[in-house]
Amino acid sequence: MNFPSKLIEEAVIEISKLPGIGKKSALRLALHLLKRDESQTQLLADALISMRTKTTFCKKCHNISDDELCLICSSPRRDISVLCIVEDTRDVLAIENTAQYRGLYHILGGIISPLAGIGPNDLNIESLIKRVEQEPDIQEIILALSPTMEGDTTAFYLQKRLKPFNKKISTIARGIPIGGDLEYADEVTLGRSITSRIAYE
Amino acid sequence: MNFPSKLIEEAVIEISKLPGIGKKSALRLALHLLKRDESQTQLLADALISMRTKTTFCKKCHNISDDELCLICSSPRRDISVLCIVEDTRDVLAIENTAQYRGLYHILGGIISPLAGIGPNDLNIESLIKRVEQEPDIQEIILALSPTMEGDTTAFYLQKRLKPFNKKISTIARGIPIGGDLEYADEVTLGRSITSRIAYE
Repeated sequence: MNFPSKLIEEAVIEISKLPGIGKKSALRLALHLLKRDESQTQLLADALISMRTKTTFCKKCHNISDDELCLICSSPRRDISVLCIVEDTRDVLAIENTAQYRGLYHILGGIISPLAGIGPNDLNIESLIKRVEQEPDIQEIILALSPTMEGDTTAFYLQKRLKPFNKKISTIARGIPIGGDLEYADEVTLGRSITSRIAYE
Repeated sequence: MNFPSKLIEEAVIEISKLPGIGKKSALRLALHLLKRDESQTQLLADALISMRTKTTFCKKCHNISDDELCLICSSPRRDISVLCIVEDTRDVLAIENTAQYRGLYHILGGIISPLAGIGPNDLNIESLIKRVEQEPDIQEIILALSPTMEGDTTAFYLQKRLKPFNKKISTIARGIPIGGDLEYADEVTLGRSITSRIAYE
């Protein structure tokens, strides 16, 4: 593209480094900011810098946090007997939005993936083991990992590592999504939904 | 959403003010920046601020520019006998990318739209009239506006205003897009492509 201005070109290059934003979308965003008040660009830039430089990670669950302990770990209203293990912050938000879980979390910061060169030592697993060891209040550990090859590998590894502590270990249910159509479900999911069928009480 | 950090929440709010970016995408972008080096966020923020505060508008064609005159208006290699009138900068980029046009541009900065309350006085029309009046080199004026109700209204208004100067006035061709299928073309476009048919020479 022949940009009319070097400054726009530089902004477009930086914006299009973000995931899922190409050159055309980046230009659209840049032109949008040019049309709006200068203060909006200033607010955006400040918010990005503050977020990047001032946030830290909760030293207990490794979630993104403004302080040493995140809002969930420091809340007195959470159920400290359940620990939910997830891949990253987005999973925490997704589970929090269901309003079905009141326990604590532990963020692995990724998933075991030999192809991507990510092994157990690259994840927050040692701190999880230490946490389970040192906090006798934990009674159940829920593995909430994606139902993929990597997710299953990670779950298998964690199960093995957590077994010695004699806690109840569970995983989130797999099955047909609510509102989903049996006819269009893949065989693996449908098969799993039959083998893990739930008896009416 | 229950954000784990106020700073992330503020960043997400600012990012999602951009057009076409919702809360979920904004969060994805924020988490992406958190994973990357601090310098990337700094570069992005700096580029946005520089673009917003340092760019100006070319005093001749009203295109976005780093200096008083934009790169196109100040280039000695452009054909100064043709003037192409467009709605905004994106149209200039689109036409430049075709490499089929070597003339100059005039950016209206919008389009006449009574519904949106935009009249001729809100656009760069007086400066266009002055430009055509003062530059005898201009021989042809091309109206490259969108084939919409507003675009046609604006073209009609401009035609009326430009008529006294006795220049050749043209508009970009409407018709079936190259690679387009006759069967799926709308009636108006197909009709127009028949009435404006081109004789083989």
